[in-house]
Amino acid sequence: MKTLLNKQSQITEQALAAIAHMPTKSLPVLISDDFMQGLTDADFMRIAVLLAQKSYDEGGCPIGAVIVDNSSKQIVGKGHNTLVQDNHPYNHGETSAIGDAGRIDFSKTTLYTSLSPCVVCATLLYMRGLSRVVVGDITNACGTETLLREKGVQVDILQDQQGIALYAHFRSEKPEQDLEDWQGLSAVKNKINL
Amino acid sequence: MKTLLNKQSQITEQALAAIAHMPTKSLPVLISDDFMQGLTDADFMRIAVLLAQKSYDEGGCPIGAVIVDNSSKQIVGKGHNTLVQDNHPYNHGETSAIGDAGRIDFSKTTLYTSLSPCVVCATLLYMRGLSRVVVGDITNACGTETLLREKGVQVDILQDQQGIALYAHFRSEKPEQDLEDWQGLSAVKNKINL
Repeated sequence: MKTLLNKQSQITEQALAAIAHMPTKSLPVLISDDFMQGLTDADFMRIAVLLAQKSYDEGGCPIGAVIVDNSSKQIVGKGHNTLVQDNHPYNHGETSAIGDAGRIDFSKTTLYTSLSPCVVCATLLYMRGLSRVVVGDITNACGTETLLREKGVQVDILQDQQGIALYAHFRSEKPEQDLEDWQGLSAVKNKINL
Repeated sequence: MKTLLNKQSQITEQALAAIAHMPTKSLPVLISDDFMQGLTDADFMRIAVLLAQKSYDEGGCPIGAVIVDNSSKQIVGKGHNTLVQDNHPYNHGETSAIGDAGRIDFSKTTLYTSLSPCVVCATLLYMRGLSRVVVGDITNACGTETLLREKGVQVDILQDQQGIALYAHFRSEKPEQDLEDWQGLSAVKNKINL
């Protein structure tokens, strides 16, 4: 079967959005190996941000993540925050992508996240042995990059301006949802009671 | 409707197992409020261990957790590790119970866990503002109690001998599954390659 995207295909925003939305297990059927090999760090970060956009469009928190096999460049897991969509107090972009990947050896993978990880996710990332984490936004949040590096994870910063603008817009629009996602509903109630 | 368990009912192992297995949202329909009010810390810990037993019987890691509202004594969330059952590299007892509870204010709740939390879960527990954590096993794992106390969480140790024996049996039976659950598949592969 001819794949939807192959070596001759242009790497367009539409192609990356299709990858963001398609089920992970369907990607090897629909996208050729050499198309995936042609994707850069910036392209994978775009996919993470397009997952963040998907979450925002569903009324959720705009944070997405993609996990890529270091040699094949296949996407082995991806996802976005589901606080609103699954009524889940802790399913961040990173945990969503890790859950999607399943029981694999993460030491040969790179995780691209549209936003700097929270301390829970950063701890999970080094404990699951990821070799590299690429962060798309250290403007709206930052700090756990130090922890990750101390634990031997390679961390690269690759600011995605669209992702940064999207998160800043979300935070100004829904500050309580943003706070709940980081610190839980008790933090929101404490703030209201101040 | 007369409830399955009410004030006159004995608090038996069978009654606690029924609570462990029934869906959380069904509990207020099937169990009277005054039956729940009569349960002690040791009873809630038994429910957490019976959830661990359920997971073990399914081929999974025997770790369970229960979240209880401090005043009503209603169970607001419960669950067990699903590494095997959901092919999930990180859904521990605590995250499973937190996911089951949904977007609630955790500052008025107590979490009972059959095993001392890993550092990822301990971080999540203080970040979600739980008021109290009761740990049923500091024999097979320990250490994060200090972190939780430093962050203002009340920690009580209530060793459950059946839970401790169950986890020790699991660890000796499936040491690689135990290691994967704590540190990921990369740690298992590194150990094999030593």
